[in-house]
Amino acid sequence: MIEKYSIKELLEKGKKFLNKKVLVEGWIRSFRNSIFITLNDGSTIKNLQIILSKNLEKEFLKKITIGSSIKVIGIIIESLGKKQSIELKSLDIKIYGEVNQKSFQKTILQPKKHSLETLRKQAHLRFRTNIFSSIMRVRHHVAFSIHKYFHEHGFFYINTPILTTLNAEGAGKMFQVTTMDLKNIPHIRENVDYTKDFFQCKTYLSVSGQLEAETASLALGKVYTFGPAFRAENSNTSRHLSEFWMIEPEMAFYHLEENMDRAEDFLKFVIRDTIENCTEDLSFLKDHIKKWNQKQKSTLLERLELILKFPFQRISYTEVINFLEKSIQKKMVKFNHPVIWGMDLQSEHEQYLVKKCFQCPVIVFDYPSCLKAFYMRINNDGKTVRAMDILFPEIGEIIGGSQREERYDILLKRIKDKNIDDRKLWWYLDTRRFGSVPHSGFGLGFDRLVQFITGMKNIRDVIPFPRTPHNAEF
Amino acid sequence: MIEKYSIKELLEKGKKFLNKKVLVEGWIRSFRNSIFITLNDGSTIKNLQIILSKNLEKEFLKKITIGSSIKVIGIIIESLGKKQSIELKSLDIKIYGEVNQKSFQKTILQPKKHSLETLRKQAHLRFRTNIFSSIMRVRHHVAFSIHKYFHEHGFFYINTPILTTLNAEGAGKMFQVTTMDLKNIPHIRENVDYTKDFFQCKTYLSVSGQLEAETASLALGKVYTFGPAFRAENSNTSRHLSEFWMIEPEMAFYHLEENMDRAEDFLKFVIRDTIENCTEDLSFLKDHIKKWNQKQKSTLLERLELILKFPFQRISYTEVINFLEKSIQKKMVKFNHPVIWGMDLQSEHEQYLVKKCFQCPVIVFDYPSCLKAFYMRINNDGKTVRAMDILFPEIGEIIGGSQREERYDILLKRIKDKNIDDRKLWWYLDTRRFGSVPHSGFGLGFDRLVQFITGMKNIRDVIPFPRTPHNAEF
Repeated sequence: MIEKYSIKELLEKGKKFLNKKVLVEGWIRSFRNSIFITLNDGSTIKNLQIILSKNLEKEFLKKITIGSSIKVIGIIIESLGKKQSIELKSLDIKIYGEVNQKSFQKTILQPKKHSLETLRKQAHLRFRTNIFSSIMRVRHHVAFSIHKYFHEHGFFYINTPILTTLNAEGAGKMFQVTTMDLKNIPHIRENVDYTKDFFQCKTYLSVSGQLEAETASLALGKVYTFGPAFRAENSNTSRHLSEFWMIEPEMAFYHLEENMDRAEDFLKFVIRDTIENCTEDLSFLKDHIKKWNQKQKSTLLERLELILKFPFQRISYTEVINFLEKSIQKKMVKFNHPVIWGMDLQSEHEQYLVKKCFQCPVIVFDYPSCLKAFYMRINNDGKTVRAMDILFPEIGEIIGGSQREERYDILLKRIKDKNIDDRKLWWYLDTRRFGSVPHSGFGLGFDRLVQFITGMKNIRDVIPFPRTPHNAEF
Repeated sequence: MIEKYSIKELLEKGKKFLNKKVLVEGWIRSFRNSIFITLNDGSTIKNLQIILSKNLEKEFLKKITIGSSIKVIGIIIESLGKKQSIELKSLDIKIYGEVNQKSFQKTILQPKKHSLETLRKQAHLRFRTNIFSSIMRVRHHVAFSIHKYFHEHGFFYINTPILTTLNAEGAGKMFQVTTMDLKNIPHIRENVDYTKDFFQCKTYLSVSGQLEAETASLALGKVYTFGPAFRAENSNTSRHLSEFWMIEPEMAFYHLEENMDRAEDFLKFVIRDTIENCTEDLSFLKDHIKKWNQKQKSTLLERLELILKFPFQRISYTEVINFLEKSIQKKMVKFNHPVIWGMDLQSEHEQYLVKKCFQCPVIVFDYPSCLKAFYMRINNDGKTVRAMDILFPEIGEIIGGSQREERYDILLKRIKDKNIDDRKLWWYLDTRRFGSVPHSGFGLGFDRLVQFITGMKNIRDVIPFPRTPHNAEF
């Protein structure tokens, strides 16, 4: 039997295969002079050139068109062209699937420039474009790097529940989940009768697995989640999805400083590992982005390497406010939003810090407690909490984290102060009653990280089938 | 600064640390003679023995109780006991969190035997028990093995959508997702007005990412999903969850035989890798299971090794029926369910094949088309489809897969024959119009695989916070 190889394998090992008989399968990307086929099988951005024998019948040659799928058995020979080191001299060719020419003209498989918006409308076919297949391969590698990092550092992967009765965190609007017939909702007096629902109570799609992950870390030491999260916000931006993937590590015995160290080390590892292993795809994306946006000063790779180059700048929220105020006084900068202690940092402030002042990622910590969630550990000043946000160039906040409040009484007070029903959090509070320890964690939007690494402007272009308001097709 | 180590690291490298000063943190598992503490930090099933200095005050010693959390700085010394090779001579001890003694008596942290049912009711604390922490570490390793296997074999990880408008597959009852106020559902005449819903149409939680994964494989070659899936079946069994994690690989250019090869190789890799890397936890689980169930003939490890020992037995559905009929005729076996061609194989038939006849996993293929989904490739006999199920001892079907129907006309006919709305599947059909290729894939319930590997009787004991009918707490 003749062995089957991926195009990636053949091109990488190149001359090792010289004069060998091999089998390849893929989709035709181009066909010239009735003799040269370029073939892609998805394993790499690169194509394999195939040279057909000259004795093929005309009727058969007509079927060899862009987009159709073939199997080729042939001999690997040295290439005379400069583009590739090897090519495949065909001995036998079989067509698996032809292309309906008329419909084909309307698809994005048609070899001409299509906008990213057009690609999105044919999300089921865009895997076959260079740009989207590159992004998907990079996305895969980023995911694998993340698992590798945590595995090698003694973290355990935890699946926290997606279906939840908690609506406590206030992290955004939630989707409700039900098995009741919406045409005929059962009522008790004026209220919905949730005893008739699947879980016998009001149930949502989780916006975060953090609270559950904390309970796991308070026994296993270090854990992380990597799963989908859902926000029902009606916001149509280039940075938000209604369904997205999130990574949430939680570490027992970590104070905020160790949390920052971990988050920085983690981001650098993943970016470095991806640069090293996705050279071809990142280089393709770099060129592609250049074509779209001539204004971009640094290239994609330069931007990624900047992340690795220096320690991230660490600065407290209060220092940031002082710093911004001084910059305004000295007329070094003007902002649209006024700078006042207690305000949320706006994108213009963040980008001023990251791009103008420090020219590297910035970690802002010790935020005012009023801006942050109930579970963040309160500082001795009574005003700030042990929160930290990591700010990146262009995209802003890439990571948000904190040291968690481990003191039972203070946590309970914070929950009540924020008007959250503490009865639903009995189990969360419970973990602070039996050997509580200082602990920390952070959250990272996976799609946003892939967006940063691939340099895509719109987050819908880095996930296979994006879900956004009014859009759940495919 | 004194370096911090996990207990796993200290015990594994053992004597390398002799006479070194180290810092450890964890939760107290036992305290004897006012001097010996056994400490666990979740990194391993094993504990570290700590020897306190004798000059500690009585008031302080009172606080050292089972369940409380401590930090210890000390010197690693050789152990005189036989249980461990090293122990820690404490120089300095700090208590992080004490234990509320009265409440503690009611928790599963109390050191006595608790049933698995009791542990489930305190799911937030069961991470701190030996049994559940073992299962969680094994679960982590199985997940990592899965990613490693696919990564090393050229598969790309794909996130298929969880929110879907598809209700086509008929794979089970689905949860509906909405942002409409159930108290006040908008209507148009007698129907729900879905234009007012978040996605402007009826939306569900996906039961499978297969169809979307297929579209990705028909461009990238080999892909896999690993994410949550949801079934709203009202079934309270030891094998079903309403929310579970699923792995679905899809491979372009694979016929059914290659699909079977891949699935078998995959299962064997993951089980072998887990045996090799989770020795201590599996050995603990083996002993634990023995205590509960004296009847079990083979141990956990023997059962796992049986999977690796032989090639899986491959037999067609029609051969299975003939075989079962002959066994009945020869009075070798009696079944409760009659054996007729066209019936679904019942658990008793499956276990007879696996445990009695072949004594190894069995792959049954070429099932009657009436039993299987529309997307499975129809055979030339017109009666059977290229489906395959892998049957394991005890748990039955561990993997279900098939070669997918790649022929447009036949696929369309099958969709219509099954009364599925083909307009919703326009994009799926589309992939068969532009360079269609033979392709295959399979699905695997992650939790059920973990259940098999850990030997747990109930699937609720292998996932952190199980979701089942009427139960979505935590």
